[in-house]
Amino acid sequence: MKPWEANIRRVVPYVPGEQPKGSGIVKLNTNENPYPPAPGVRRTLKELSIEDLRKYPDPTAGALTGCLADYYQVRPDQVFVGVGSDDVLAMAFLAFFNSGKPIIFPDISYSFYKVWAELFGIPYETAPLDEEFLIRPEDYYRENGGVIFPNPNAPTGLLMSLEQVEDVISHNQDVIVIVDEAYIDFGGRSALELLERYENLLIVQTFSKARSMAGMRIGFAIGGRELIKLLQDVKYSFNSYTMNLPSLVLGTEAVRDEKYFRDTINRIVDTRERTKRRLQGLGFSFPDSMSNFIFAAHEKASASELFEALKKEGIYVRYFRQPRLENYLRITIGTDEEMEKLFAFLESYLGNMA
Amino acid sequence: MKPWEANIRRVVPYVPGEQPKGSGIVKLNTNENPYPPAPGVRRTLKELSIEDLRKYPDPTAGALTGCLADYYQVRPDQVFVGVGSDDVLAMAFLAFFNSGKPIIFPDISYSFYKVWAELFGIPYETAPLDEEFLIRPEDYYRENGGVIFPNPNAPTGLLMSLEQVEDVISHNQDVIVIVDEAYIDFGGRSALELLERYENLLIVQTFSKARSMAGMRIGFAIGGRELIKLLQDVKYSFNSYTMNLPSLVLGTEAVRDEKYFRDTINRIVDTRERTKRRLQGLGFSFPDSMSNFIFAAHEKASASELFEALKKEGIYVRYFRQPRLENYLRITIGTDEEMEKLFAFLESYLGNMA
Repeated sequence: MKPWEANIRRVVPYVPGEQPKGSGIVKLNTNENPYPPAPGVRRTLKELSIEDLRKYPDPTAGALTGCLADYYQVRPDQVFVGVGSDDVLAMAFLAFFNSGKPIIFPDISYSFYKVWAELFGIPYETAPLDEEFLIRPEDYYRENGGVIFPNPNAPTGLLMSLEQVEDVISHNQDVIVIVDEAYIDFGGRSALELLERYENLLIVQTFSKARSMAGMRIGFAIGGRELIKLLQDVKYSFNSYTMNLPSLVLGTEAVRDEKYFRDTINRIVDTRERTKRRLQGLGFSFPDSMSNFIFAAHEKASASELFEALKKEGIYVRYFRQPRLENYLRITIGTDEEMEKLFAFLESYLGNMA
Repeated sequence: MKPWEANIRRVVPYVPGEQPKGSGIVKLNTNENPYPPAPGVRRTLKELSIEDLRKYPDPTAGALTGCLADYYQVRPDQVFVGVGSDDVLAMAFLAFFNSGKPIIFPDISYSFYKVWAELFGIPYETAPLDEEFLIRPEDYYRENGGVIFPNPNAPTGLLMSLEQVEDVISHNQDVIVIVDEAYIDFGGRSALELLERYENLLIVQTFSKARSMAGMRIGFAIGGRELIKLLQDVKYSFNSYTMNLPSLVLGTEAVRDEKYFRDTINRIVDTRERTKRRLQGLGFSFPDSMSNFIFAAHEKASASELFEALKKEGIYVRYFRQPRLENYLRITIGTDEEMEKLFAFLESYLGNMA
């Protein structure tokens, strides 16, 4: 080891899904929305003033927080925005999980939770999902330094009822509980309505999925005013100006078009339900996803072999080489046309196996 | 205190300069570039594909790091990009200053250094500037957990010679030394040429000043491959996709137009030198700035009163209410027209005092 290496923080980073380029690729590996952002986003982009880029953007991101506050019927000082929900979650871990006691999250879940805990030196414990991949609220009754879970969970796609979510929160009123709702718009009921009862609740959502703007990097948190103020303080201690001008302007525009938002979600949900029927017919089983992906295992085919075969065909899905998941593929819901390409390949591949 | 407040990280955040809005304002308070970004940026913005926004951006930011590597004649794996140089510096503090020994930085300097150290629980000591506001390299000879200083320094604008910079680095080869070159393009000599001799050196620069893109939030670091790899690991443990698509595309375009870049810098430097002569004529004294701002004190007028009087007139400069600085105003170099408005007001204000 070189002398200057002594003080370096060594981490095992999160590995994002591949971002392959090229035409003809069917990209079902990172849970992106197959439809473009709202039409108003295009118009607003064309009108963006290049002269304004020379100046710092509004550090409070007021236009965006104000517009989200209107949309979700909360006060602007209850909204925090960041560079994707990963940035929001990283700040929340740093701000709220500053305890000697372990935080708790599900053992099968968004794999970044563990990475943030290790980055910031936060002790953690995981609570195992049950045999059907469900989160058991009673696992979160024990003493801890904070709680985080996604609803719906990833990569299972399974939704907890609002009663179950409240059960976890009500048993943890002495710590911060973060509900990560990246996929809530695809059929779940948000914990937002619990905010007035629990000031220790933080809800995190994203523009990367239902709002078709993964490329803009916008995420947000909604919580009580005190919680948001404490999160802002940490953010202002990290980077004053996190949101660049295009993200503020285009993000605001994306929130305005409610009809497009709902239409896009409905299309994805329709395709998802059709995909479930088709996959079932092909011999796959899967938890009943309420998100924009399906976590499927085949009765005969090996998931890792199928993953490689699909990739050769230019069809990218996600495979997690870890206990209990090694028979599954996480398949993002794309357009109907993209899903047909997937089904056609699967029919041929599975037919050749028989 | 409420029970859930126990585990919260409490910080005193950095306070950025005001971002006043409205016409007729002369904004000389946040060291922005008075000229717009390169013309190619406008063209590229108009061509940005809205469809691509639905997908995650390239997590490696390859287009931007590649283009910076070409420009600065280093390898692409020697370049790290972030959401402004504040993001880059925050990541570097987290990655490299992980020691029980105090890091050292100048007592009068970028006030964010202290904020990051406190956020991450990094012990620190400050080294006082001498009577002429100069950094003394010998103050950095003592044992420490890392070193950071800006060159030119802020808010003084004073430049260290490359020999002095190397003196500090060569005495600190057992820790990481960060040279924060936010203002280097306005007349300084970058430490980039020292990189081949010191693999513990990290140089941080920004698109917010000389490149006129504060609104895009782009900063970068250049260092040895090992150092950059370690910094990337920490970044990937925080947020996989920090740079949104517009910043990647527009940032790349901004680097391409060397002529515009040089012309803009020359205009600002010309205005700065003229401003020095005018301020001197008005009874101000100041360190000999090599940046895009001047840190000036008047022989008779109180800086805090002058600051308020200027603000009433719609002329924003920066005032720091802290020991040794309370007689000074930090004045950003604007357009010639903006500076004329400043001079006209100062003449009248100081004339009325007499």
